[in-house]
Amino acid sequence: MYRTNTCGELRLSDAGKEVTLAGWVQRLRKMGGMTFVDLRDRYGITQLAFNEAVDKPLFEKANTLGREYCIQVKGTVSERQSKNDKMPTGDIEIVAKELNVLSPSLTPPFTIEDNTDGGDDLRMKYRYLDLRRTCVRKNLELRHRMTILIRNFLDARQFMEIETPMLIGSTPEGARDFVVPSRMNPGQFYALPQSPQTLKQLLMVAGMDRYFQIVKCFRDEDLRADRQPEFTQVDCEMSFVDQEDVIGLFEEMCRMLFKEIRGVDLPKPLQQMTWAEAMRRFGSDKPDLRFGMEFVELKDTFDGKGDFSVFNEAKYIGGIVVPGCAGYSRKQLNELTDFVKRPQIGAKGLVYIKYNADGTVKSSIDKFYSAETLAEVKKVTGANDGDLVLILSGDNANKTRVQLCSLRLEMGDRLGLRDKNTFKCLWIIDFPLFEWSDEEQRLMATHHPFTMPNPDDIPLLDEHPERVRAKAYDFVCNGIEVGGGSLRIHDTKLQEKMFEVLGFTPERAEAQFGFLMNAFKYGAPPHAGLAFGLDRFVSILAGLDSIRDCIAFPKNNSGRDVMLDAPAELDQKQLDELQIKVDLHQEN
Amino acid sequence: MYRTNTCGELRLSDAGKEVTLAGWVQRLRKMGGMTFVDLRDRYGITQLAFNEAVDKPLFEKANTLGREYCIQVKGTVSERQSKNDKMPTGDIEIVAKELNVLSPSLTPPFTIEDNTDGGDDLRMKYRYLDLRRTCVRKNLELRHRMTILIRNFLDARQFMEIETPMLIGSTPEGARDFVVPSRMNPGQFYALPQSPQTLKQLLMVAGMDRYFQIVKCFRDEDLRADRQPEFTQVDCEMSFVDQEDVIGLFEEMCRMLFKEIRGVDLPKPLQQMTWAEAMRRFGSDKPDLRFGMEFVELKDTFDGKGDFSVFNEAKYIGGIVVPGCAGYSRKQLNELTDFVKRPQIGAKGLVYIKYNADGTVKSSIDKFYSAETLAEVKKVTGANDGDLVLILSGDNANKTRVQLCSLRLEMGDRLGLRDKNTFKCLWIIDFPLFEWSDEEQRLMATHHPFTMPNPDDIPLLDEHPERVRAKAYDFVCNGIEVGGGSLRIHDTKLQEKMFEVLGFTPERAEAQFGFLMNAFKYGAPPHAGLAFGLDRFVSILAGLDSIRDCIAFPKNNSGRDVMLDAPAELDQKQLDELQIKVDLHQEN
Repeated sequence: MYRTNTCGELRLSDAGKEVTLAGWVQRLRKMGGMTFVDLRDRYGITQLAFNEAVDKPLFEKANTLGREYCIQVKGTVSERQSKNDKMPTGDIEIVAKELNVLSPSLTPPFTIEDNTDGGDDLRMKYRYLDLRRTCVRKNLELRHRMTILIRNFLDARQFMEIETPMLIGSTPEGARDFVVPSRMNPGQFYALPQSPQTLKQLLMVAGMDRYFQIVKCFRDEDLRADRQPEFTQVDCEMSFVDQEDVIGLFEEMCRMLFKEIRGVDLPKPLQQMTWAEAMRRFGSDKPDLRFGMEFVELKDTFDGKGDFSVFNEAKYIGGIVVPGCAGYSRKQLNELTDFVKRPQIGAKGLVYIKYNADGTVKSSIDKFYSAETLAEVKKVTGANDGDLVLILSGDNANKTRVQLCSLRLEMGDRLGLRDKNTFKCLWIIDFPLFEWSDEEQRLMATHHPFTMPNPDDIPLLDEHPERVRAKAYDFVCNGIEVGGGSLRIHDTKLQEKMFEVLGFTPERAEAQFGFLMNAFKYGAPPHAGLAFGLDRFVSILAGLDSIRDCIAFPKNNSGRDVMLDAPAELDQKQLDELQIKVDLHQEN
Repeated sequence: MYRTNTCGELRLSDAGKEVTLAGWVQRLRKMGGMTFVDLRDRYGITQLAFNEAVDKPLFEKANTLGREYCIQVKGTVSERQSKNDKMPTGDIEIVAKELNVLSPSLTPPFTIEDNTDGGDDLRMKYRYLDLRRTCVRKNLELRHRMTILIRNFLDARQFMEIETPMLIGSTPEGARDFVVPSRMNPGQFYALPQSPQTLKQLLMVAGMDRYFQIVKCFRDEDLRADRQPEFTQVDCEMSFVDQEDVIGLFEEMCRMLFKEIRGVDLPKPLQQMTWAEAMRRFGSDKPDLRFGMEFVELKDTFDGKGDFSVFNEAKYIGGIVVPGCAGYSRKQLNELTDFVKRPQIGAKGLVYIKYNADGTVKSSIDKFYSAETLAEVKKVTGANDGDLVLILSGDNANKTRVQLCSLRLEMGDRLGLRDKNTFKCLWIIDFPLFEWSDEEQRLMATHHPFTMPNPDDIPLLDEHPERVRAKAYDFVCNGIEVGGGSLRIHDTKLQEKMFEVLGFTPERAEAQFGFLMNAFKYGAPPHAGLAFGLDRFVSILAGLDSIRDCIAFPKNNSGRDVMLDAPAELDQKQLDELQIKVDLHQEN
């Protein structure tokens, strides 16, 4: 037997017991004729004591150990002379009688401590050592615990976990698919699912009533910090429900998770905000409600009051009140101007008004507007003396709002208002069914083509599709979209209409989604669902900056696993069997 | 609200309640002025009653319903006049007051009944209708229940479920990989995992101590009836354990599953049989112990007793006693001879001896051997009057045993000895570490190259690798390998030695598995694990003939999903982005 106990469980009440432990050498301290080893495993750290006076050969053997050696020790649990009340095992130590080196270790390329000296690249290459760090391991433990809680919650409510296939067909609508050449069907390819959307709808047609799956999904998109080519969804679908049924049930699930994992009681019920309101007040469909700085619309206040052509030509003027920041320096204000002018934000400039603590007002537009107008802005925005008002304007209201949202979040960060231990959750509802794609020059489905239009808006589908609201809802926490879903269309005719508005020919709709529209002809039930992004959900509850930190073996921004060195070139034999050829034609 | 209750829960005690149900029309019966509808959902069937005399328009509307219409009904729970004690809701019916057709249905292409008239192909094409059949749905329910039981069992024993990546590197050793071209790394490919073997070993190096994952795996092999290109494993790994620890823990898990799912108490502990014994007695590494017909070795009995050159030249002669079958006709015996001569079995011929009930003996070899020799065979085999002895011989003992195993299983089937409701489980241990591949003309790892040799046999690695036993174990039930695993090598040097015996150059070993051997240099713990085939495990406990029946959307023998019509050709744009070309060069 390799061990009688783990390194986390022995206490003073175990004193006198003969035990065997196994684990890794975290640290070795020599003090006079004693050597102390901190032995670590997943469950904790236990101190081992080697006494030169008692057993010199054993003592000398202990002194040959290095960090991260994997060892086995037999000895007696004893009360410590100098106790450590910071560790659960701090009252005891193991007086060693036997030591076996199970596996020696080279010096690790970085220290295995919460505060490691290893850079990102090195830690990813040696991820198996990085994962030994308690702070990283705890994220995986939390992830495991969350999935157990989720599964048992859903199981208790009659949801069945049903595995849907990973090798499905490619659907060019939406994001890019990862594809898999089929050797048995040469020239043909499977696709890896971006989500099991159509399959879970078919399970509803199949009468499964309540489905869920914690499932890997794949999107071949250019990667940003918080995206991975493979990610995990908690994917759910229900039959015979309306929007409030779905929201109610999954709100309860979220409430359970926040309570179990973080001890936080979410308000009951959670706030619901329409997409239009969220855009108007926060410039975002995932507003961060941990702090205020709500948008104030200033078009009416400025109109006809001065000859600032930027404002006079703008369709939208919006401001935020940054409390206590009237003292911002020229340099700080320049930084903010540079911030909003970055290409990924795209504002043309930034207007500020400082309502100084001494009652004076200083603004970048005080040569255009009277003191009365600036006093009016103060009144409308509710700014106090000492506050800074930041204003953006533009000819597209929602685009300008999105820019102002970036500025608001930046100010929230600067003022430390985005505390990771505060959680503000809400539902966003009444999304627009379509959004205009500048790239494709056509309407695209905001969520996906299977989303049910608001029944009140169906008459608008032909003439004003851009005004049609969707029966869709997102679960948002701290400015992050954690989950989202919708009622689905379950009627062939309406689904055909959707594809028509999206610019599909009937032939193309049939070729790509015929299997689903055909299924709807056999008594499809009304159904709805949603999916949570598990990686994001875990990282929020763990207080992480990146989803990578809660993934055992993540990929880097080039989609590479640097530990496995994947992807890689194939043998010619493999390519021949698949009857494909590499055809490099682009410079990279 | 679409429903107040499901179709499975109303009882006589609910009589008088006003309820709303939703579901599918299973059947419609017209009797005089009454129409009865069996309304079905996942939870059961409830009878609806429409009375012409009470509400004629409603009655007429009900009469327009067809099979598989999805409807909603409001009405009153009432005691039935003619009760049906075969259904839990058989004491009541719903006297309908309101009927809404939620979704009409075309006539289904096959009947939605346990005994359907739909053939395999049609049912797969309309799998969403096939899944409405109770007998199919129950398999998915059982699968769900099993995974919940497994997860909670393992969670209670400190196992953490950790997701390993689906997009990894290709390793040409072993079965063929499915590969995924990388757009961001042109000319390079990911592979889909055949199992998370190396990743779970890295998790042990990472100190995760106890890992599991219920995970999709992929093998691009030519498909047989009981294989799918994607399949699901219950994948497990533990540190600081020996073989008996792993066997003990997972035997407990299996015992729990058989008890919970089937109410069966497995023996405690389960039998363990060496691979060599299993081959000798049953000609298989996965013997079906539901019936006897053990092999009797007859070489000594026949040697020098007659001039039958087939036996005299054979290295192995083995027989089975088929009880009560001495009366087999010439035709039946010819059938059996044809059976063993089929190419996939490959025997050259079959010898029989009938020990007739009247004491006479009739044999295909009675012109070669004396009555005394045949009497001796009777004695050695333990045959009784009325029994049939079937004998195969050959110049390779194990190959002949495998042939005789096929015959034994065939006789077990013919005699009805392989009852799906009887479960005989055992562990097979002491597998050979290597097996000779005729195709590759070299030794291959019987399981995989990471399997630990039996320490007693390590000295044989250089001279007699074929005699080295592995620390490997399979869990076998009713002749099916349900799970298997091994102790793993955790020492770089021994792992290098393994690759050397397998014929890898050090460069190739480093290129393919350097990440693992490098990891072993940093204090790798002793570890071991195993994996269960979930599809097979479910199908055994559900009493199914094929794993397909417990998979929601299986693929056919050509690896196609006929419902989705996948795989399929890609758009040229997709191929261009991936910088690959289809290069059809083989006729198919």
